[in-house]
Amino acid sequence: MAEYRHLLVRRDGDTVGITMSRPSRRNSLSFEHLTELCDAFREAGATDATGIVLGAEGPVFSAGHDFADVAARDLTGVRDLLDVCTDLMRTIQSVPQVVVARVHGLATAAGCQLVASCDLAVAAESAGFALPGGRGGWFCHTPAVPVARAVGRKRLMELALTGDPIDARTALDWGLVNRVVPDTDLDDAVAELLARATRGSRASKAIGKRTLYAQLDRPEDDAYAIALEVMASASQLPGAREGMAAFLEKRPPAWPD
Amino acid sequence: MAEYRHLLVRRDGDTVGITMSRPSRRNSLSFEHLTELCDAFREAGATDATGIVLGAEGPVFSAGHDFADVAARDLTGVRDLLDVCTDLMRTIQSVPQVVVARVHGLATAAGCQLVASCDLAVAAESAGFALPGGRGGWFCHTPAVPVARAVGRKRLMELALTGDPIDARTALDWGLVNRVVPDTDLDDAVAELLARATRGSRASKAIGKRTLYAQLDRPEDDAYAIALEVMASASQLPGAREGMAAFLEKRPPAWPD
Amino acid sequence: MAEYRHLLVRRDGDTVGITMSRPSRRNSLSFEHLTELCDAFREAGATDATGIVLGAEGPVFSAGHDFADVAARDLTGVRDLLDVCTDLMRTIQSVPQVVVARVHGLATAAGCQLVASCDLAVAAESAGFALPGGRGGWFCHTPAVPVARAVGRKRLMELALTGDPIDARTALDWGLVNRVVPDTDLDDAVAELLARATRGSRASKAIGKRTLYAQLDRPEDDAYAIALEVMASASQLPGAREGMAAFLEKRPPAWPD
Repeated sequence: MAEYRHLLVRRDGDTVGITMSRPSRRNSLSFEHLTELCDAFREAGATDATGIVLGAEGPVFSAGHDFADVAARDLTGVRDLLDVCTDLMRTIQSVPQVVVARVHGLATAAGCQLVASCDLAVAAESAGFALPGGRGGWFCHTPAVPVARAVGRKRLMELALTGDPIDARTALDWGLVNRVVPDTDLDDAVAELLARATRGSRASKAIGKRTLYAQLDRPEDDAYAIALEVMASASQLPGAREGMAAFLEKRPPAWPD
Repeated sequence: MAEYRHLLVRRDGDTVGITMSRPSRRNSLSFEHLTELCDAFREAGATDATGIVLGAEGPVFSAGHDFADVAARDLTGVRDLLDVCTDLMRTIQSVPQVVVARVHGLATAAGCQLVASCDLAVAAESAGFALPGGRGGWFCHTPAVPVARAVGRKRLMELALTGDPIDARTALDWGLVNRVVPDTDLDDAVAELLARATRGSRASKAIGKRTLYAQLDRPEDDAYAIALEVMASASQLPGAREGMAAFLEKRPPAWPD
Repeated sequence: MAEYRHLLVRRDGDTVGITMSRPSRRNSLSFEHLTELCDAFREAGATDATGIVLGAEGPVFSAGHDFADVAARDLTGVRDLLDVCTDLMRTIQSVPQVVVARVHGLATAAGCQLVASCDLAVAAESAGFALPGGRGGWFCHTPAVPVARAVGRKRLMELALTGDPIDARTALDWGLVNRVVPDTDLDDAVAELLARATRGSRASKAIGKRTLYAQLDRPEDDAYAIALEVMASASQLPGAREGMAAFLEKRPPAWPD
């Protein structure tokens, strides 16, 4: 994998770990940091890995946008920054791998948006989540987009308007994360969930993940129009044929990809 | 009621019971089975019954599509199969009766989709729910459509990507079912919920059910545009007039339908 | 503040209290009552207050539409009534203040819709919530619009089809309210949540609230198209500039509005 200035990117078996390593700036998402994350997700996405773990070094998962970077920008400059940030969120959802957020410490603003944008999330008990724009002068407009789609309306309003953090157990109860474990068990829990989420045909799962994001948030008829046609086409692909054959022949499948 | 090969369809008072009775095939949804279910829901829908209970015989509620049926089909054939499957889900939501899923054992893939597509669901403690396509070679693209709309995004991703089952208590916590009861209390709990859900004017409730599905998953302004006009029109119908008159005259209503 | 026939409207510090005061009619929402609520929210919205609390006098929060008013109306008349009702719900979401529902007793039908339409809601343990149209002859078509968007599909179906009330704890679990407290603590809990939700730049928060409602219930790409452009523009406004400057200079912010 390439070298990055603000990231550690390592391949370990079928998994690529992308670790934000700018703890002195609380992994805040400067333009350069966001660009590197986009590049790293695209690089990992082009490999034959089956999973990606997004983690962070230091006491804070990510503090969101870097105000030192934002404050110096005019409208066009901020739009450029938010374009690359939104591009990152979409890239996470479009790569063929299953992406798991490994969250310890605070994930705030665009850092919380990162967690909401990963396919799955495992949090340490010490983790916290906030949309702190609501306490201050800007506002977490774009971070609220994926967070709203995980936690429901009244809870989104509370997060966005108060700016106060919720703890990991509340995030689990509200559906923002999939698991909460003691801090010492975080890596094991991430590995365990990722192993279960990456079984089977890699190509079929990549189609599945893309189609899930395509059909969400639409009227049910529109969602079916997308999912039905994909499912019919996918039935003819090698992964599906092998899965059905193995099931019918009562033998373990040999995935073609 | 008509005779079916894979179903038991019985009228009992105001309720039609539609019971999948192909336990030797784990109530898997072959083309013929799906077609019979569509026919049975349409037949029941045309009666003056107020409720429909969808249940199953044998240890498994439904294992979803029948791979023996799917594996032999080309693209057009699979599309035909998914068309009738999607038609079934829409029919369940468009019949005027309140439809309750009575779930014991495992409901997987299109079997889980059936539960998510019924208006209400009561599960025995032994029930389980899964989108197992995520473990293998095809993928539960269409089953994920109604399941996503019940459980929220991160939980949908976990179900769809891991393929692992959740138990009945988790399904209740996530909003996939309305009640969980000991297995021996399942029929009583279904009857009790159905009795409460079928009170009042049958015609008004049928309009209500249709309008709920029409307004879901849309921006709020679009949803109001639908619901407001229906509610204004419905206020002039006999059921609404009688309901209001009875309330104002402090007497029990005599529903006109 | 103006005088109203069915409301008490009082400014107290940064908060405007709008209290439905027609307990003898269980705060049912006649055309006149709805019109007054619209006027009061518009009047409060035009002040420099930062928060609005919607409460009620008497044992019932609000029983919804007044059947004595509805029963006398033809189609056009009911449409006029629902137009003003829907206008009220939209006004609550469009005023720049944070709106908190202070709920004790039963909130039913359009009364429950009011709670779902407020930005935040605090309920006393004695509160209950219902869409009772499902028991009777009309149906809670429009109240179901915002309630569906808070509680999810299967729970909406149960509320709308059975018409039975849920208690405050269930409403909290389902995401319809943000807090449940003993009845004697209700005012303190409302004040505490409102204080936390109204910190920071008033102008920025008003933009934030509007943008949240604009992006909800849309496919994620559409939501980002809205939120990104707002967030870029908002970065240049005085509130955002001051918030970032104060953070970077490690001093308390002095909000310009």
